[in-house]
Amino acid sequence: MLSFGERLARAVAEKESMLVVGIDPRLERLPAPVLDASRRLYGESWEGAGNALLRFGQSVVEAVAPYAVAIKLQIAFYEMYGWWGLKAYAQIAAYARELGLLVIGDVKRGDIASTAEAYARAHLGEVPLPSGRVTPALLNVDAVTINPYFGTDGIMPFLQEASARGRGVFVLVRTSNNSARELQDLRIEGTGELLWERVARQVREWSVALGEGSGAGQEGWSLLGAVVGATYPQDLERARELLPGHWILVPGYGAQGATAQDAVRACRPGTGLGALVNASRSVIYAYEEPRFMEGRKPSQWARACADAARAARDELRAASRES
Amino acid sequence: MLSFGERLARAVAEKESMLVVGIDPRLERLPAPVLDASRRLYGESWEGAGNALLRFGQSVVEAVAPYAVAIKLQIAFYEMYGWWGLKAYAQIAAYARELGLLVIGDVKRGDIASTAEAYARAHLGEVPLPSGRVTPALLNVDAVTINPYFGTDGIMPFLQEASARGRGVFVLVRTSNNSARELQDLRIEGTGELLWERVARQVREWSVALGEGSGAGQEGWSLLGAVVGATYPQDLERARELLPGHWILVPGYGAQGATAQDAVRACRPGTGLGALVNASRSVIYAYEEPRFMEGRKPSQWARACADAARAARDELRAASRES
Repeated sequence: MLSFGERLARAVAEKESMLVVGIDPRLERLPAPVLDASRRLYGESWEGAGNALLRFGQSVVEAVAPYAVAIKLQIAFYEMYGWWGLKAYAQIAAYARELGLLVIGDVKRGDIASTAEAYARAHLGEVPLPSGRVTPALLNVDAVTINPYFGTDGIMPFLQEASARGRGVFVLVRTSNNSARELQDLRIEGTGELLWERVARQVREWSVALGEGSGAGQEGWSLLGAVVGATYPQDLERARELLPGHWILVPGYGAQGATAQDAVRACRPGTGLGALVNASRSVIYAYEEPRFMEGRKPSQWARACADAARAARDELRAASRES
Repeated sequence: MLSFGERLARAVAEKESMLVVGIDPRLERLPAPVLDASRRLYGESWEGAGNALLRFGQSVVEAVAPYAVAIKLQIAFYEMYGWWGLKAYAQIAAYARELGLLVIGDVKRGDIASTAEAYARAHLGEVPLPSGRVTPALLNVDAVTINPYFGTDGIMPFLQEASARGRGVFVLVRTSNNSARELQDLRIEGTGELLWERVARQVREWSVALGEGSGAGQEGWSLLGAVVGATYPQDLERARELLPGHWILVPGYGAQGATAQDAVRACRPGTGLGALVNASRSVIYAYEEPRFMEGRKPSQWARACADAARAARDELRAASRES
């Protein structure tokens, strides 16, 4: 079984794309044809809301499949619709995998060991039914994002599940928001490190503990990656140094303001590999921009998403060649 | 509208109980009568798993309602069963509220502002349906736990939603697990504070930003609380000093090894108020202990949970009077 890090390297190289499309739908921004169809079928109901999320997500997946290497589902936007939303989440994930895309569940879970194990099984593993027979969990994806606040014993259950099943884990290291610096940039007494640098060092140590050698070394790729926001480009470069054998999932490109040149600083120099760059709003809501809808009917909204995804892929590809 | 902090103070005083029962079910440990009934009705299916969680949860809620002030649902154990599990989560929460219990969703969510807003609406607020009409979210509870790693802009959406709707928020400050110390006990350069102490200070500042005065002062109670594990009793006392007007949700009592004497150190001295002490495994699996099942048939398993809850309440009450 190929490890997730290697699987990712192969997929990015084959597709010549480091683009991840974040499908984080807000019902009130969905295209009118999607909302209208769901209303006709289900009226004003939770089922209708879930159906709208699903139709939207599936159309976006189809539209971006030629250009993106993966999709990322921000589970918060599905949790808003309770079990109807989570069912759409799982169905969109399954459809994306059918079309050959990797699926990242952006769940940012984190807890004590016994609970982390439950989360790991819920999102990467198998669960027991009443008879005791185990079966793949309904919310299964290829990789998840997790929070480091609990330390090693909250991380290990995710790594063990991922390792056993060819899945991946991205640890939050340096987030893309403004107030990220409040905790993450605190300087630790004695070591001179910032908190996020310490977390990055931990990520490398966890890879070693997994038996992957010194953080997967300069050669291979660990199943364990890091989330580092493109909104702090100098930190992205520093993270690449601290994590030579680790994929970096980079939010912040597009609607959050970072450029392609910023984002590709997460690549291993000269290779075009090592960065997965996420664009959400700038791709999935492309139909809100007149330039993408010129000469198109409202029902052709998904073509706008396809164009935006292709443009983002090309921009990232060019930036990575120039860097 | 009474704020969550005040609502909690009233409930704890009226019931003379600071006990929270954590309903964190593992299917393989549920009583045979529960599993058998679900299998008879639904065979070997996801629906059967969801039904078993629901039946178990409702019976535990009934059993502990006279003794506990609140239940806490660890959502990970429901997420394992996808939408079937989440539906059981919501139904158990609704049932507990019908019986007069407060419900804490132990979700430990945390993300950038726009996503935190989605989580806050999903768990404490209202969401829009396809028509634009808003309606209370399906996973609604009285309070949630959240993770501080993103800083202020990831916290505020939860506080705003909670403040507008009489709900509460507990920020992870010092967790109960062994490796909590790896990040949380790092000492910050210049201030002499440990990281968790800095987070505690932030909690107090967030209360001020909410317009609650100096962390709700020595008088009232903030809607914003903290999670501090009883497995570090000296830290619990320090947290009480740092957070004079804040409820402390205390995990670690019971199966995780801390005593009632440890846990009540989170109380505001001399009042018996300020600590919510969680017991999960020691109450919900009480039927696994022969001493609780003496003279009882297997179908009477829930009486063991009732006895264990009463004993825990009494133990905490006595410890708080002696302290």
